[in-house]
Amino acid sequence: MDKALAGIKVLDFTHLLQGPFATQMLGDLGADVVKIERKGLGDSYRAWTFLNYWIGGTESPCYLAFNRNKRSLALDLKTSEAKKIIYQLAETCDIVVENFRPGVMEKLGFGYEDFKKINPRIIYCSSTGYGQDGPYAKRPGQDLMIQSLSGLTTLTGTKDAPPTPLGTGIADQLGAYNIVYGLLSSLYYREKTGKGQKLEINLLQCLLTHQLQEYAVTLNSGKLFERPQSGIAHPGQSAPFGIYKTADGYICISVNPIPVLAEVLEDDGLRSYDDPKTLYDKRDEVFFRIQESTVKQTTAYWLERMLERDMWVSEVKNHLEAENDLQAAHLGAFTSYEHPTAGTVRTVNVPVKFSETPGDIVRHPPMIGEHNEEILRELGYSGSEIEVMKGIGVI
Amino acid sequence: MDKALAGIKVLDFTHLLQGPFATQMLGDLGADVVKIERKGLGDSYRAWTFLNYWIGGTESPCYLAFNRNKRSLALDLKTSEAKKIIYQLAETCDIVVENFRPGVMEKLGFGYEDFKKINPRIIYCSSTGYGQDGPYAKRPGQDLMIQSLSGLTTLTGTKDAPPTPLGTGIADQLGAYNIVYGLLSSLYYREKTGKGQKLEINLLQCLLTHQLQEYAVTLNSGKLFERPQSGIAHPGQSAPFGIYKTADGYICISVNPIPVLAEVLEDDGLRSYDDPKTLYDKRDEVFFRIQESTVKQTTAYWLERMLERDMWVSEVKNHLEAENDLQAAHLGAFTSYEHPTAGTVRTVNVPVKFSETPGDIVRHPPMIGEHNEEILRELGYSGSEIEVMKGIGVI
Repeated sequence: MDKALAGIKVLDFTHLLQGPFATQMLGDLGADVVKIERKGLGDSYRAWTFLNYWIGGTESPCYLAFNRNKRSLALDLKTSEAKKIIYQLAETCDIVVENFRPGVMEKLGFGYEDFKKINPRIIYCSSTGYGQDGPYAKRPGQDLMIQSLSGLTTLTGTKDAPPTPLGTGIADQLGAYNIVYGLLSSLYYREKTGKGQKLEINLLQCLLTHQLQEYAVTLNSGKLFERPQSGIAHPGQSAPFGIYKTADGYICISVNPIPVLAEVLEDDGLRSYDDPKTLYDKRDEVFFRIQESTVKQTTAYWLERMLERDMWVSEVKNHLEAENDLQAAHLGAFTSYEHPTAGTVRTVNVPVKFSETPGDIVRHPPMIGEHNEEILRELGYSGSEIEVMKGIGVI
Repeated sequence: MDKALAGIKVLDFTHLLQGPFATQMLGDLGADVVKIERKGLGDSYRAWTFLNYWIGGTESPCYLAFNRNKRSLALDLKTSEAKKIIYQLAETCDIVVENFRPGVMEKLGFGYEDFKKINPRIIYCSSTGYGQDGPYAKRPGQDLMIQSLSGLTTLTGTKDAPPTPLGTGIADQLGAYNIVYGLLSSLYYREKTGKGQKLEINLLQCLLTHQLQEYAVTLNSGKLFERPQSGIAHPGQSAPFGIYKTADGYICISVNPIPVLAEVLEDDGLRSYDDPKTLYDKRDEVFFRIQESTVKQTTAYWLERMLERDMWVSEVKNHLEAENDLQAAHLGAFTSYEHPTAGTVRTVNVPVKFSETPGDIVRHPPMIGEHNEEILRELGYSGSEIEVMKGIGVI
């Protein structure tokens, strides 16, 4: 089968979550991604983990999650030899991605203008926390801070809880998708016109965009959302939309007509709440009334009765339950690859199914500098020249 | 300025959040998006809102949020005339997107195989909750249910809280970005090879992908995350990563070295926790100890002292505060457009900054069937033919 991005070369200066996730999405579709790392320590995400757990005893799950389908070239970026190598790579590459703070790449001689001189067709994407300039440009930008600044933490959880961030790197991941959106549309444009360009992404704008419909309310009405005092799952939503206790766990009851819910719960009194205003104004009261019914039976009991009425309901699963979900198995949602030190590594599969150009995992996440020699040979360096570079500490 | 996707025609059968957000991203970059709606009611998102608030008294903020830069053609899709019109549009379009349940488009005669016969270069994307087949294929799929099934709700909030969903449509929005990722890479591939293809997206796989690093832990270790009993903001993270009370609000204290934090808080005792194992095992204790200091002064007081040490910290803003953020103003994060019934509508700007092909808002979200006549004329229908179609109820 073909690969959608076969022949595309990516010069990847990214680290941590956001940038590496973006370039991994390109690698999954066949792009040749060369990950430029600091000699020695490499991407600082290699030293990051959760639960003090290391896959195979040594490898970071965080790093492994976002670096498959790449090759690693580890250099001392401050040497003139490294600069020469980077410029050689820039001559033939299509895409550059970086997520340093503003000004760092320019100082190294790797800004857009530097590369444009070498290769005017280049598409160069910079991603930062808050943009290249402005009052926050020098502030550090990191996912949790962007969640906090964007308003997102005021939408989740209950009224009496402190602002509640999502327990995943949502700003970083939306940043990654916006990088891909920018790069692929620019690639199409370049095919049509021959012109490269510079892209700028910032995490703050990405997370504001994620709240397009919540901002549609606040920007135009001047009103803030108020979080519910119950498990209603969106601060602008009416009952029953939420997660309810059952006799043995929880059930998700999304948007559903009250008469159907009243029938299945055998609670005729629920019908008295059935108008839009009441279902919003008294959503907490309705939530707790519904929950008085749901706690009396198991999740399986309710699911069967609700799904046969085509209600919008589901189980609430933890990660082990989700791993063993029958639909996930049917989809091939999880897969694995071999890694030189971590052994067999299980991971989540490519999200998009392509009829002609399926994505897949052809390379394990690279060790630091794993492809130094291979990449330098492709650039025309001889074995003895590579030895010299090792000797003087370039690689 | 050029538009990255100028000349690209999108036949858009989507509704609610996910699909419309995806096609809006294409429209923002200049694609000609024709939104096919049901005659009469149109996209059911037009009837959806929050806080019982309607922009200008009549327009749904949810619908407006995701439908700029499109034209609307409202048809009775079950008539043969409507089918003929759709097939005519398919002859010259590049992209088809739909997010009905499996089988609906095929039943209407609008499946991939139908369109492929008319236009083999077409790129056709179907998005569903759980995929086109398998044990859940007939289940309704909606954002909150996907959050619940994917494990996501077990990552957010505190240990004693019920599973806590994010208060935005995260599955839908990641679904939208994956549609864009699939379509734009396919568009590039088609430029190279002339070949169209069929794409399938499902929300469950998108939200599993969002948890790549959390699954990297659970799939390989068999261990589940446990949510903290404090405001630590990720269940796998150590202190201090969280949102802390201050004398007048909250402050976000992300990843930061304990010695620096001990110094700025003037709490030398904090240093005794400074090793990775303790900062995870005793994260709740550390959290509450830090908070004992932060509550004594205002957010502004701490921000000044912490930012001057280049610590990873920020304010915690609600949507009105975020709207008035100085960096947001500098970025031009918000913008507005005129709408025929809603008046001036404020919204969030395009997330990616392009040097050569900037995105912008050139069309307000259309009224139902607003472009019926314009689009039919482009297809070659005469004024009297259009009148006949109105008369017999096609449009």
